[in-house]
Parts: sequence; C-alpha cells; structure tokens
Amino acid sequence: MARRFSLSGREGSTSRPTAKTSAGLREAPTDTITSRDNKWLKMFRAALRGTGPAAGESLGVEGPKLIEEAVRSGLEAEALLVSESGEAELSRILCAAGESDSGIPRSRILRTTDKLFASVAGTEAPQGVAALFRAREWEFDDLLRGPAARDGGYRGEAALVAVMAGVQDPGNVGTLVRSAEAFGATGVVATRGTADPWSPKAVRASAGSALRLPVVRGIAIPVLLAQLRVMGIRVIAAVSRAPDNAKLELPDLREKLALFIGSEGAGLPAEVLRAADAALAIPMSVEVESLNAGVAASVLLYEIANQRRARG
Amino acid sequence: MARRFSLSGREGSTSRPTAKTSAGLREAPTDTITSRDNKWLKMFRAALRGTGPAAGESLGVEGPKLIEEAVRSGLEAEALLVSESGEAELSRILCAAGESDSGIPRSRILRTTDKLFASVAGTEAPQGVAALFRAREWEFDDLLRGPAARDGGYRGEAALVAVMAGVQDPGNVGTLVRSAEAFGATGVVATRGTADPWSPKAVRASAGSALRLPVVRGIAIPVLLAQLRVMGIRVIAAVSRAPDNAKLELPDLREKLALFIGSEGAGLPAEVLRAADAALAIPMSVEVESLNAGVAASVLLYEIANQRRARG
Repeated sequence: MARRFSLSGREGSTSRPTAKTSAGLREAPTDTITSRDNKWLKMFRAALRGTGPAAGESLGVEGPKLIEEAVRSGLEAEALLVSESGEAELSRILCAAGESDSGIPRSRILRTTDKLFASVAGTEAPQGVAALFRAREWEFDDLLRGPAARDGGYRGEAALVAVMAGVQDPGNVGTLVRSAEAFGATGVVATRGTADPWSPKAVRASAGSALRLPVVRGIAIPVLLAQLRVMGIRVIAAVSRAPDNAKLELPDLREKLALFIGSEGAGLPAEVLRAADAALAIPMSVEVESLNAGVAASVLLYEIANQRRARG
Repeated sequence: MARRFSLSGREGSTSRPTAKTSAGLREAPTDTITSRDNKWLKMFRAALRGTGPAAGESLGVEGPKLIEEAVRSGLEAEALLVSESGEAELSRILCAAGESDSGIPRSRILRTTDKLFASVAGTEAPQGVAALFRAREWEFDDLLRGPAARDGGYRGEAALVAVMAGVQDPGNVGTLVRSAEAFGATGVVATRGTADPWSPKAVRASAGSALRLPVVRGIAIPVLLAQLRVMGIRVIAAVSRAPDNAKLELPDLREKLALFIGSEGAGLPAEVLRAADAALAIPMSVEVESLNAGVAASVLLYEIANQRRARG
C-alpha cells in the first residue's frame, strides 16, 4: 500500500482521496492524516494517554461503545479520529450522534492510518475510533441533583454523593463511579490527590458512567467539608473496621448524604474522620484486612440504595 | 560498584562474600547470583511473570507483605530471592516463618543484584523480595469446609462456593477471591478458561486471600455441575438483570450454595443458566448496563453473608 509518512511538523499533511488500486487494496480514505506531528494527532495522543484533562482541555474517549455512550449522554464531540480498520464502526457512532442533540460536524471527522492510530491510542488493542469531547463543567449543585434521567426529568431521591478522598488507582476510581451510578448516587467528587475520573483508564473502568454522572474534580477536602456542611449534607466515612465489628447501622438514609471513601492503603484522612457524622464498616471475616476500595464503596452504596428503597 | 555480570549458562555462578570497599560502597552479599541464566532466576522469572502455575509448578509471590501472608498461611517456601535493596525486608519475613510451622531453609535464601531482580520481577516497582511456594493441592471437599480458622478449627457455617466461570481479568479474579474470603465463602473455583487465581496479578489483587482460601482451578463446567449436584449443593447464577428487576429474593441461604459468576462481557454460559436452581440480579439504575464483575460478585456475596447472619 502506498502510504506516505511525513515527519514534517507542518499542518495540512493530508493525502488526497485515491481510488482502489487494481490489486484491490484499499487506499486510505479522504483527507487521511499521515504525519505523526499533525496537531490533531498530538491532541489525541495527549488526551488518550494522559491522566485526565486539565481545566479547558478536552476529554479523550476511545472505542466505539464508549464514544456512543458519550454521544448519547449529550457530550459535544470536538473531533473524531478514525483509522482504516475503525471505519466500520463509524456509521454506528454517527447514527447515535444523529439521534442526540449534538451532531458531529463532518469537518471534524479525521482519518488516519492504523499505524498512526496505534501511536496515539491508550489501549493495547486499539479499536480504531477515538473522540475528543468538550468536558462538562459541573457545578457543586449538580452533585445533589443527579444526572438527567433519559426522559429529561430529574430523580426525586435525596442527594447521595460518592466522595473519593485519595483513591489512587484509576481502575478503582472508574469502578466506583460505575457502581455510584448503578446505585443511584446523584454525583461524584474526586478530591485533590485522587486519580481523575475523566482519565482514559477511569472512563473505561466506569463503562461510561463517568461521562453521565455529575463529577467535581480536584477540590480540597476542607473546602468540600465546609460546602457540605453549609448545604446540610451528612458526612459518612467508610472505614474498614467498626470498633465492635457490629452489623452495619446507618443514620436515616433518606437524608442527603456524602459517602467518603479513602485511599487503598491509608484509608481516610484524619480530617474527614473527625468531621464525619457517622462511620460505616462492612462486617467481614477477621482473616481479611480490607476489601478492594472499589468493592468496599460499591457494597456501601448498594446497602444505602437497599435501605432507601426499603424505607421508601 | 564492582558487580560482575556473567552471561554463561553454567550453574554455580555466585560470587564469594566480599568486604565493604574502601569507598564505602556495599558489595553484593554472600552467594549472590550474578548470572541472568541461573536456573533459580529462570524459575522465578517464569513464576513471577506467568499466568499461574501448571500442576506441579511452584507459586510465585512478590513483595514482603504477600510473602508474609503466604508464610503465615502455612505455605511451604521452596526458595526466597532477595535483592540488595530487599535485604531490609528479610528479617520480618524470617520472623514470620519462624512463627509458622514452615521455616524457610537457609540454603534456599538466594541473593541477587537489584538489576537482576528487576529482570525477573513481575511488578513495575519491585520491592526486592520474592518467593516460590509449593502450591497446595486442594480437593473438592476442601471447598465446602473452608480455610482452617486461625485457631486450627473449621467454621460451622454451610458451604458457600464462589465459582468464576469465564472471568478473564486476573485483577477481577483476585478482587473476587478477596471478597469471597471476606464474606465467608468456604472455597473458590476457577473453571477452565477463567484467569488463574494463582497468577501473580490475581494473587496481588486478592491481597493474599488466594493463598488461604481453598481453590480448585481449571475444572470443566459440566464436571463441576455434576459434582455439585451429587453433593447436594444449590447452584445460584449471578445475572445482570432480573426479568422484572425486582428486589433480590433468595432461596434459603443457610443451605449449601455455589454462586456462579460469568465473564465480564458475555455473562454466564447457557449450560450454567439452564442448570441453576435460582438466578440472582442486583437491583440497579437502568442507565447502567452491568457492574464490574468483581463488584457484582462481591455485592452478592455480601448479601448472602448478611442474610445468613440475620437468619442465624
């Protein structure tokens, strides 16, 4: 195949459309990016291999399923990058985009070669499609209201905010956000020093939940605690052992709650434990020191959802 | 530092003890392995970077904390590999070994350089100690009896076997084994095609639970189902959606149960769904298609433990 690779940093390094060769080999389609130094490829590389977007930067999403979730959740696509082998996925994505409010402008559908796509992708087995989305700017109030339901309305339930205070592993953060949405959390907070829920690994582990649920990132713990207090939200600390390892006893769960989950190794910082209205521990075998952070948070969120449902 | 690197394949490539040099640089200590081709290093490399031991092979464990857990659980150490910077961890491990029945023979404490240690380690930031343990041979009956309690006795509770049928990710497998032990499972089964609970990644994610809990690996599903039936153990299938998304309703949980958990993508195979006495789904938001496999299993095991505790 006659692919051209250019190492120049100049823009506009795209090839013209070409017909199929007589040998039947597919040529790269219209306006294919063939330079590793193309500014779009650089943006995709930064977004797909980074640890999450800084303020004002785009959110990178890889793979047809996640992109579809992002589009359906109403995120605005800034660019879509498609490799030769990703071409087959394009129609499904554009179809999803057509159904949502936010169409993807044709001029922002970029093509590249499989080889260059692999050089920007953040996964080991890239699926040939990636997108940059304008990151949502969630306000603190959004955390209490929850995501818009599919019918456009909001849920009537009391606020349930999952707060990650020092969770280090993006996989755990993503798993936690996925469970948070599953169990009716209205929003998620990642305090300063927590892995970014919008990092590519966390978005993948969240199976798209991080793109739907209101997320506030990088807030300092004292600021967050003060804000929760002002808004009358109870602070619940997840701890690995209750003093007496008793059955889980909770305050009134129909109230507005923020559930704080600490780091995998060290648990919650002392300032959170001091400020908490209640501490929650999951009863478990003495042989086991602690649960995986994502699992522990999920079990507590499940328990809260369960008791809210039971008490109506 | 005057380290010698030998690329010969011959055995006995160890250096003699050397005193500190006048410059104060530490030399490698007694009997340091300096050849990349040393047979022990090859065994460690295979065990620490593999996907789990075949029958008769040793189980590789890395890091002081996990090795200590393994020693305390009574596993028999075949060899201990210590790098220059891992030397500080050695006394704690030997102390744990002294307290357990299974001491570590001095002749099997092997030293190597940090560089060679890194070349056999399976982690990105190796902690300088690794061990090979003789893998336990668990029988099917052990799954129903559970691990020996710390006082040597066995638990009186009814069998609860967590069966992973096609779980692909070693991290999910390890997380699941950790939760299984935490919530009182008496044993764990990894059917053929499931990631090995004794693979280094799974052992790490299990935080040592995979070294304590009875584990049966690589069994074919039809054989397992037949065996469970013969022994009068109810088969419970974890599914992502109940037909009516109703509240979790379970059969009598004081009975002997096997909880089957399927693969991350495809769920449980049809033969398990057909054979199951009951299907369990976790109630969750319609926006979320499914939970992380490790989380879903953990929530169900938590719920089973909870109801067993409540009903006594």
